Amino acid sequence: MLDQTIKVELSTTKKQKPNADQLQFGKIFTDHMFIMDYTEGKGWHDPRIVPYQPITLDPSSVVFHYGQTVFEGLKAYVTKEGKVQLFRPEKNMERLNQSNDRMVIPKIDEQFALKALKQLVSIDKDWIPTAEGTSLYIRPFIIATQPFLGVAPSSQYKFMIIMSPVGAYYKEGLNPVKILVENEYVRTVKGGTGTAKTGGNYAASLKAQEISSQKGYSQVLWLDGIEHKYVEEVGSMNIFFKIDGKVVTPELSGSILPGITRDSIIQLLKYWNIPVEERKISIEEIYEAYDKGLLEEAFGTGTAAVISPVGELLWKDRKIVLNNGETGPLSKKLYDTLTGIQYGTVEDPFGWIVTVE
Amino acid sequence: MLDQTIKVELSTTKKQKPNADQLQFGKIFTDHMFIMDYTEGKGWHDPRIVPYQPITLDPSSVVFHYGQTVFEGLKAYVTKEGKVQLFRPEKNMERLNQSNDRMVIPKIDEQFALKALKQLVSIDKDWIPTAEGTSLYIRPFIIATQPFLGVAPSSQYKFMIIMSPVGAYYKEGLNPVKILVENEYVRTVKGGTGTAKTGGNYAASLKAQEISSQKGYSQVLWLDGIEHKYVEEVGSMNIFFKIDGKVVTPELSGSILPGITRDSIIQLLKYWNIPVEERKISIEEIYEAYDKGLLEEAFGTGTAAVISPVGELLWKDRKIVLNNGETGPLSKKLYDTLTGIQYGTVEDPFGWIVTVE
Repeated sequence: MLDQTIKVELSTTKKQKPNADQLQFGKIFTDHMFIMDYTEGKGWHDPRIVPYQPITLDPSSVVFHYGQTVFEGLKAYVTKEGKVQLFRPEKNMERLNQSNDRMVIPKIDEQFALKALKQLVSIDKDWIPTAEGTSLYIRPFIIATQPFLGVAPSSQYKFMIIMSPVGAYYKEGLNPVKILVENEYVRTVKGGTGTAKTGGNYAASLKAQEISSQKGYSQVLWLDGIEHKYVEEVGSMNIFFKIDGKVVTPELSGSILPGITRDSIIQLLKYWNIPVEERKISIEEIYEAYDKGLLEEAFGTGTAAVISPVGELLWKDRKIVLNNGETGPLSKKLYDTLTGIQYGTVEDPFGWIVTVE
Repeated sequence: MLDQTIKVELSTTKKQKPNADQLQFGKIFTDHMFIMDYTEGKGWHDPRIVPYQPITLDPSSVVFHYGQTVFEGLKAYVTKEGKVQLFRPEKNMERLNQSNDRMVIPKIDEQFALKALKQLVSIDKDWIPTAEGTSLYIRPFIIATQPFLGVAPSSQYKFMIIMSPVGAYYKEGLNPVKILVENEYVRTVKGGTGTAKTGGNYAASLKAQEISSQKGYSQVLWLDGIEHKYVEEVGSMNIFFKIDGKVVTPELSGSILPGITRDSIIQLLKYWNIPVEERKISIEEIYEAYDKGLLEEAFGTGTAAVISPVGELLWKDRKIVLNNGETGPLSKKLYDTLTGIQYGTVEDPFGWIVTVE
């Protein structure tokens, strides 16, 4: 499919672009979107870039009833020289297919999808904001569209890419967040869909998130669904701890999303010769390290915030404040380096950057 | 909201109704549908019955990305005398609100929703097929429609009811099914969304279902997600076993859907003075009962099939055949009684039937 031409229908009117200070995450979308269809027996077909527009579906479409969906999230950045850069986009397409496998959605041609993504970014490149810390958020996703109420994999799908200009996640520098350790609700369990980027995992998280917000905490730290003992993820990010000079993060045990930022941080730490371990980490261990004065930093990692320092943890009735509630030096260094690579101000020794012509 | 008028726009053209022998589950829909909208600050509003038609949504709508959905399923039946009957529809509306609570979706007015459902059924009553075992399947559902990529409860929703004429589930009488006991994939775990009727639970089930189909089994028997030891559900039905004269079914432990057919069967068994227990049931216990010659029957229960007898179980490498692969007398009696009440040929001592004028 790689050689297939993408039909392009340009928008005749251009929407007004928001000012840099009005940028909100995921509320405003660019002038165009990519779309292609899947029909059983025919495969993925009719790839096209069209003006951003609503989609029309039968109310019995599978996506409305049985949640057969997958998605990805990545960003395009403009360098000072005006170059448009993507960060490891091939990893997103690879993970999209891993999610597809778990959710019984037909695989896409990863190289073709990346070609389509680059062409779409190129067409809407004027939408990439240029102020510091801003970027263009890119959302590839697949939805099941067969009009049929049977519980079975859909015979029809739509693969779409939409894009939204987003502001700096931290307007006044890195800002440590308060995290509630969740004891009642669970995100997922081994054998479930936790390793896939699929809608149901996020829907499942809303209730605990709502309760933690009411208590004044901005995110939930998920524990494993079996023993409620081992740390899994924070909100929709992966989590790292620095204990006595060593960095630890939960291993990919079958219920954790294999984050691309997570993987990049592990590679970066190894490159810097900072010890890093992927393993089981109990919440008791974190609190014990704190009591011994060995818990130096904690941070979440993900595409949206890159690094999200943890300033406070509440587990049952016990609150602990990390690094005086301030961003630690390693969190800062990782943030500066990763965003530096993404914006082209720091050398990329890993070959992570892909340029859009 | 109960007194609010439902605006009705009747279809100017009527679709052709399928013949009784062409009826398939959930593929053909009636002439009309019910729809009402929710907007934060305004609540549920604009209830209306309109011609069945596609819906148009922004590609960034929450339902496409984060699976914030709930649904219900029930049926309308025509009696020999031409009366239109519903089976415990108030329980569906009650459960819809329980699902809403778990998925952080604003609650509906249950009585108003039931009024809307009855009005819709009444308008499309000619669509209820009359051949034996046929009925009109009714699907109320709610989808999150806010155009926003943030992981947060949507500020906008649509509540809809669509309806599909369906054939007899068993064309040649009750037909026992072959079931594979699933050891790798899990449906859900306590603290997850297993008690809610939400899309993600069904999406999560597709992979195991696909593998079991390839092995020649029609459904999966889910074990608990913690120890892979206790029986939970079969496919998207609840499960019952008859062991040594006593009926047992898994207790509602926080990961099982509280089925309305399940509840009706428990009430019916008690009414008949047949011992019935809701408790933890290990898969070992089932196999031990079989070895002692005490496993008399097993059956799934749900709205679609009512009773689905289990003819064979495969757990790891061990296959057991139940009741010679035939429908057991209790399964048959329960099926005949429940469907008899639904179609008005058997007296309803429980007040389960609601008539549509």
